[in-house]
Amino acid sequence: MSERRTWTRESLVEAVQAGDRRALARAITLVENGDPLAYEVVSDVYPSTGHAYAVGLTGPPGVGKSTLASSLIRIVRARDKTVGVVSVDPSSPFTQGALLGDRIRLVDHFLDPDVFIRSMGTRGHMGGLAETTLQSLLILDAAGKDVVFLETVGTGQSEVGVLSIADTVVLALMPGSGDSIQALKAGIMEIPDVIAINKMDHPMAKTMLNEVRQVLALGPREGWRPPIVLTEAMRGEGVEQLWEKVEEHRAWLDSNGELELRRQRNLAAEVFQVASTRARRHIEAAVRGDGELQRLLADVQARRLDPLTAVREILQKVFHVDAEAR
Amino acid sequence: MSERRTWTRESLVEAVQAGDRRALARAITLVENGDPLAYEVVSDVYPSTGHAYAVGLTGPPGVGKSTLASSLIRIVRARDKTVGVVSVDPSSPFTQGALLGDRIRLVDHFLDPDVFIRSMGTRGHMGGLAETTLQSLLILDAAGKDVVFLETVGTGQSEVGVLSIADTVVLALMPGSGDSIQALKAGIMEIPDVIAINKMDHPMAKTMLNEVRQVLALGPREGWRPPIVLTEAMRGEGVEQLWEKVEEHRAWLDSNGELELRRQRNLAAEVFQVASTRARRHIEAAVRGDGELQRLLADVQARRLDPLTAVREILQKVFHVDAEAR
Repeated sequence: MSERRTWTRESLVEAVQAGDRRALARAITLVENGDPLAYEVVSDVYPSTGHAYAVGLTGPPGVGKSTLASSLIRIVRARDKTVGVVSVDPSSPFTQGALLGDRIRLVDHFLDPDVFIRSMGTRGHMGGLAETTLQSLLILDAAGKDVVFLETVGTGQSEVGVLSIADTVVLALMPGSGDSIQALKAGIMEIPDVIAINKMDHPMAKTMLNEVRQVLALGPREGWRPPIVLTEAMRGEGVEQLWEKVEEHRAWLDSNGELELRRQRNLAAEVFQVASTRARRHIEAAVRGDGELQRLLADVQARRLDPLTAVREILQKVFHVDAEAR
Repeated sequence: MSERRTWTRESLVEAVQAGDRRALARAITLVENGDPLAYEVVSDVYPSTGHAYAVGLTGPPGVGKSTLASSLIRIVRARDKTVGVVSVDPSSPFTQGALLGDRIRLVDHFLDPDVFIRSMGTRGHMGGLAETTLQSLLILDAAGKDVVFLETVGTGQSEVGVLSIADTVVLALMPGSGDSIQALKAGIMEIPDVIAINKMDHPMAKTMLNEVRQVLALGPREGWRPPIVLTEAMRGEGVEQLWEKVEEHRAWLDSNGELELRRQRNLAAEVFQVASTRARRHIEAAVRGDGELQRLLADVQARRLDPLTAVREILQKVFHVDAEAR
């Protein structure tokens, strides 16, 4: 078994579509590095994607998302479906160790050839995390994975870039998730499709369940109403029911044509998100590399030139567009 | 007292600088509407700004930020300083009433001519909330307000646009803010300059204090270490000490030249933020109004054209730039 150190566009596309693990690992690394080869590969495989079901899994740090993901993988595998996981780590300056420790739960599946797991950090993504997640999902989709979990930490809107491509979004909470409940209630956190309350053995689990129920009762009466499932991911309890709810959501989407509509909306939103992030990087790079634009910034800092005039001049110079106040 | 219904650029600038309340109200409304007159007024007054001290106040919903703001205003007024408040409401589809009820605390100060309070929603801001907040701050600054509070709900990174211009950021937590503590610990929520634990009468307040202390102990040992203050905003308890900590932070920034550096960094970041948001709006409007770009999106949705190629073509067409994968 000799190591293949170089991939051509053709060989990588072929190996990705065959589900070759090293090819998948390589392709996603290329995606993370913003390598043109990744772009070519995804471009080639894109017409054959759309088969995988993308399940987003989010929640505040510490609720046991990785353990939950690990349990869900076990259940999906028992149903003989293949699995991909894209797990987005927060960039922690403090407790990287602890978070990695949590992620070790996923190691249970590292030897299963039909499970492919990839962790990625949150820094240094050319088109932002939205782009990296989307491209990675497409690669795993092209490799024939039936279910792809997109796992990321979430405390509000910041995870949107990662989860906006998901077909079903699962929010994990636990007793003590007071801030998240308040955020849901205040409408600053989007209502997910399915809610898991993990650590159901905790004495406050029932209280949390009631709080979540009350929040959801305030929501719209039409359409899908997010079910709440109590889980104890460490022992796998309730996770079967959680997966059933995900499948019910999928069936509901399928039954009324919503899945296709949702995917169309998601893809359009991703395109705008990635384009915006690239536009931003382009502006930052342009200002870094241009003495005249640097002087504009210095003038703002010295209160000689107001910020909005500086913005106008930057957009004019970098993109040759008028971004009027109107 | 006849109502002045029309302002000219000159009269509005003059009245803003004189601190005229109706002029301030009008100018900020124009800012919210993205009116060119607002842009001209801020441009005119900008050279005279930089006097106001901008204090950001954030925290998850329900911790009592508005009550805390109200108490802080009382203390600042007792020191004979004038106050401006920009309070950014979350857009709640559910409980707008409850949140407004909370905000009523601020009404205590509505009759004080040296306090100017403005609430704004989170929708429909041309350059995003960052732009609206910045412009409103500059107007209140030009009006001679000594302290301007920027109050917004925060559960992670989403409030950054509003608070990134603040000189001192106060994070309010309460017993039950477990998700926020975890987010601080995981490094996905930025460490603020001062922390208030509100609702100090709660039996779990001490536990929360210890948790916050532990998180902060993991931080850097050099530079400013965020103090923690226990408050009971409803009775005004601990708020005097909270304000002292804000002033200590200001003195610390002043003593080592950090204030000027921080403001320079903040202004540059605001310029990039506003430019990016405008670039995004520009892209979205361009695609809406262009059949060819619409077809690109449709091709992505039909899996005939991959998303990144669509992004490239959109950026090429809209901004005439190559946003290469590299």
